[in-house]
Amino acid sequence: MDHGFFRVITPARFLELLAEFAPTSGEVAALDGCLGRVLAEDLVAEENIPALDRSCMDGYALRAADTFGNSEGNPGYLQLVQNAAIDEVVARPLGVGECMGIATGGSLPPGADAVIMVEHTQILGENTVEVRKTVVPGENVMLVGEDVAANDVALPAGRRLRPQDIGLMAALGFNTARVHCRPRCGIVSTGDELVPVTDKPRPGQVRDVNTHTLACLARQAGAIPVLRGLVPDQRESLVRVISESLDQDDVLFISGGSSIGVRDLTIDVLESFADSEILAHGVSISPGKPTILARVGDKPVLGLPGQVTSAQIVMLVFGQPLLAHLGGDARAFDPGRRTLRPARLGANLSSKPGREDYVRVRLEDLGGELVAMPRLGKSGLLRTMLDADGLVRLDAPLEGIAAGQTVAVWVL
Amino acid sequence: MDHGFFRVITPARFLELLAEFAPTSGEVAALDGCLGRVLAEDLVAEENIPALDRSCMDGYALRAADTFGNSEGNPGYLQLVQNAAIDEVVARPLGVGECMGIATGGSLPPGADAVIMVEHTQILGENTVEVRKTVVPGENVMLVGEDVAANDVALPAGRRLRPQDIGLMAALGFNTARVHCRPRCGIVSTGDELVPVTDKPRPGQVRDVNTHTLACLARQAGAIPVLRGLVPDQRESLVRVISESLDQDDVLFISGGSSIGVRDLTIDVLESFADSEILAHGVSISPGKPTILARVGDKPVLGLPGQVTSAQIVMLVFGQPLLAHLGGDARAFDPGRRTLRPARLGANLSSKPGREDYVRVRLEDLGGELVAMPRLGKSGLLRTMLDADGLVRLDAPLEGIAAGQTVAVWVL
Repeated sequence: MDHGFFRVITPARFLELLAEFAPTSGEVAALDGCLGRVLAEDLVAEENIPALDRSCMDGYALRAADTFGNSEGNPGYLQLVQNAAIDEVVARPLGVGECMGIATGGSLPPGADAVIMVEHTQILGENTVEVRKTVVPGENVMLVGEDVAANDVALPAGRRLRPQDIGLMAALGFNTARVHCRPRCGIVSTGDELVPVTDKPRPGQVRDVNTHTLACLARQAGAIPVLRGLVPDQRESLVRVISESLDQDDVLFISGGSSIGVRDLTIDVLESFADSEILAHGVSISPGKPTILARVGDKPVLGLPGQVTSAQIVMLVFGQPLLAHLGGDARAFDPGRRTLRPARLGANLSSKPGREDYVRVRLEDLGGELVAMPRLGKSGLLRTMLDADGLVRLDAPLEGIAAGQTVAVWVL
Repeated sequence: MDHGFFRVITPARFLELLAEFAPTSGEVAALDGCLGRVLAEDLVAEENIPALDRSCMDGYALRAADTFGNSEGNPGYLQLVQNAAIDEVVARPLGVGECMGIATGGSLPPGADAVIMVEHTQILGENTVEVRKTVVPGENVMLVGEDVAANDVALPAGRRLRPQDIGLMAALGFNTARVHCRPRCGIVSTGDELVPVTDKPRPGQVRDVNTHTLACLARQAGAIPVLRGLVPDQRESLVRVISESLDQDDVLFISGGSSIGVRDLTIDVLESFADSEILAHGVSISPGKPTILARVGDKPVLGLPGQVTSAQIVMLVFGQPLLAHLGGDARAFDPGRRTLRPARLGANLSSKPGREDYVRVRLEDLGGELVAMPRLGKSGLLRTMLDADGLVRLDAPLEGIAAGQTVAVWVL
């Protein structure tokens, strides 16, 4: 038995290696299927939004200069030339002393440069409007191109599309867009003790958990999980499933093989493929040290620990950024994409210097103060992740963090 | 024209009214389709997880008492009775002075109460193991039922399922579960100025944005958006589309009608349905005041402002919690489901007392300090939501918040 890790690298180096893989190609998606997809092209505005100066309020379009000095006690009077329908574009320029009734969203006539809210006016007779307030030029007006100017990049390639981005696309008339293909992520569990969820385990057997948690986490990262099932700790089966996945998927995640013999088998099998390279054999994080990164052809293969909690941590720290990157997300490795919440640490944490620790914590509101309570526990148990609201990272040089210190909790 | 709101209520009251609508019924979903779904039943464990005491490490199962006093300088020696395969359950009890080779995940034999990591041992000859450390009972062992005990509620009804929950379901053999149906959410945009995304707007027209942003936000809240298209500001069309939606959907969202005449039309039409009730006509938030809540039969109808930013804010503050609640989520109205990040306010904010303001902010890291910079702007523009990382709420009694104060940013 060989207990050593030959190529243990730092998490920073691990992420650098992940970034070298190429993102997926593009495909055309319909607007209403674009939420969460990543643009594979810059979307350039062909029009100004708004296309015309538009009113933000129900009221009267006017020339701001005509209201100067107006107040509740000293109102002014304008001549109402017409009430315009919301979709009406009035060509007749507004003259001095004139105003036009306008609805929210309506277009301003030439000559008008502001809108007064209806609440600050009074209609007198047929066509006189009392104006009890001074307005300034631009008041209650959305200006041409204030949202986006024609020929500007409205949304850049690499952007993962949020609801408000989809709204902008709609405004600009993009009914489709070129987006990165969702990476197909093959998922394999290895381990002679594993049975599928549908089986009743015999004593000594357990049901396969990692396939399902990793599939969910892959989906959350924008990938399409391809469940390739359970593989016994046996060379031919492993060769077959890896070949199949590398033929059809963009990336392969193999969990299991945390027991030493099996880990070695996975490495051996990966090395047996033509144009393959073991990029990392161990990474200095805990839990998650026995993680493997390999390249076969131009595709990444990530070997995750079999322990259920370790596998989830490795997926969060490396797997999800890799999938986001393969899916074209420009922010895949941006630490800013993690939501961090400051909290007071509720108990002392110790760490082995030289490795990055990820401690599961529960967030508790103690009298208005947010406290991160560590949920220590064996990484083969599901419980710590079930109870956890987030993770606290102890950086490699630290020997620990004392209770009472403020920590940044990575909210899950 | 009628400028008044007859039934302006507080946001707290609005949420109470939303909570009175009944959640959807249940359906059976397959395990791999359960991510993000909400349980409609308690899942009760039929087995202990783990089912047997299992090892967390590669090493040797032993009786902890046999190692007391062992150290690097004073090792002890145990007799290796066998190396067990990972899925092997050894029935022969471990005697005093004996140990058994065990892999991570392997089951402990009777009599063993701890595991020593292989790193702290040395194999001597055929079947003697040198043990250079004292272990305590339970060390490196996952105990029977430590994750879940048989007959316990493993996951309660009302829980929205996360990856780790799906993992627990897999461990327990739940290949399906009864979950709430995703609420079908009819979405209608009204406004004579609106054209579909596929059209080139004439001057005075704009493309419909709200259908698309609201559909995305509905999807994020676990609902199925049903796009019911554009409706002109005209009674018969509105009656037809509302009837259709109420026949087929669980809830209807109508945006538009921020101009006064149209708002009144929506109210009139809703009141014309049998067994209908206008529950709110205006809510004291900004933006978003002209929001309508009605009940038609047992279904909620939410009327959102037409302004694109106002519509998104109303959707975030009321629409998403309503959809989560209809979808059975026990935490739908729990303020804890919003991610709040403390930040220093970057500019003075003023507010009209008596209404709850939602100010869009961008989060900027200024020399290690998180600063929330307000993005003030007209609520008819898309820009402020495009630029925003989150929202700052100014509670109703406040007249403002001074720059430099710490605020809780609701991260979007």
